[in-house]
Amino acid sequence: MEAYKVVFHIDESSKWGILLANVKNLIKDLGRDNIIIEVVANGAAVAEYLNDINEANDISSENEVAGRIYNLSKLGVDFAACRNSLAANKMEEKLLPDFIKVVPAGITELIKKQAEGYSYIKP
Amino acid sequence: MEAYKVVFHIDESSKWGILLANVKNLIKDLGRDNIIIEVVANGAAVAEYLNDINEANDISSENEVAGRIYNLSKLGVDFAACRNSLAANKMEEKLLPDFIKVVPAGITELIKKQAEGYSYIKP
Amino acid sequence: MEAYKVVFHIDESSKWGILLANVKNLIKDLGRDNIIIEVVANGAAVAEYLNDINEANDISSENEVAGRIYNLSKLGVDFAACRNSLAANKMEEKLLPDFIKVVPAGITELIKKQAEGYSYIKP
Repeated sequence: MEAYKVVFHIDESSKWGILLANVKNLIKDLGRDNIIIEVVANGAAVAEYLNDINEANDISSENEVAGRIYNLSKLGVDFAACRNSLAANKMEEKLLPDFIKVVPAGITELIKKQAEGYSYIKP
Repeated sequence: MEAYKVVFHIDESSKWGILLANVKNLIKDLGRDNIIIEVVANGAAVAEYLNDINEANDISSENEVAGRIYNLSKLGVDFAACRNSLAANKMEEKLLPDFIKVVPAGITELIKKQAEGYSYIKP
Repeated sequence: MEAYKVVFHIDESSKWGILLANVKNLIKDLGRDNIIIEVVANGAAVAEYLNDINEANDISSENEVAGRIYNLSKLGVDFAACRNSLAANKMEEKLLPDFIKVVPAGITELIKKQAEGYSYIKP
């Protein structure tokens, strides 16, 4: 069976908790090899990408958004940030963790992925 | 003409009112035979599935969420609940009305339906 | 390359700011000729369509929702309003600006567009 593909969209910081729980349950349900997952953050939601995510010694806790993002990235989940939103939030790209992919516009990324057959989920 | 297919996603209890109005208007607009509808609830939104929905004598009112869900199910609209969310809300599956379909993970259901050609709507 | 196609869904008035910024950035990123955009408003979000949008002398400001809608329509972005929602908000169709397309049901429009290959975005 071909793997399913999904792109998650988040533009509000308050939705990180439910989104990350969704991703975790999804992997548990389908099995890691049967689903390709990309999370695209734009708007205010990009702020969490800089929130202590680089401090490796602090991100082991499953209670922290940054740690949960890091742990899912280790499982092969892709995380993207919208460049326009980073600029609007005065966040420097070079300070982002290496595993975060910066895209010119988050909305474009969401459209391109859907055109490639990805399902869309907005928690 | 082949029927349209749509999957509605709800993860916040406060969105039931607008979602059920959307479904009702959709059926009225396209005609019952021209649209296949499934509603997938996860997160906190699953709570309404137990809210007096079993009390047949109380669900005739169009003003109550539970009654409106029941009435739409009679019209052939499918309603699904995420098992993970039921557990998180300490809801017993056996207490759910028979017409509610329990799925292992709501997000997986939403992805599979889109892969089958369903449109996605998040009110 | 064939142009990408996207339908934006808005049902809360508070989301107009982020939606219009999304549309603007999208056009800037892909180029006007490479993307076909329709915005479908239903629920309470239709109210902005009447909010001074007809007063041409007041809509030059990029700070006002109505002005930004008007300016994007000039760039070829389509804006649609749900007839059910207009009625629910006691808004007269004949008072809407000419460039607003009234559709019988906003949800139907969103489903039809996705069935035609449009991506779906809900800011």
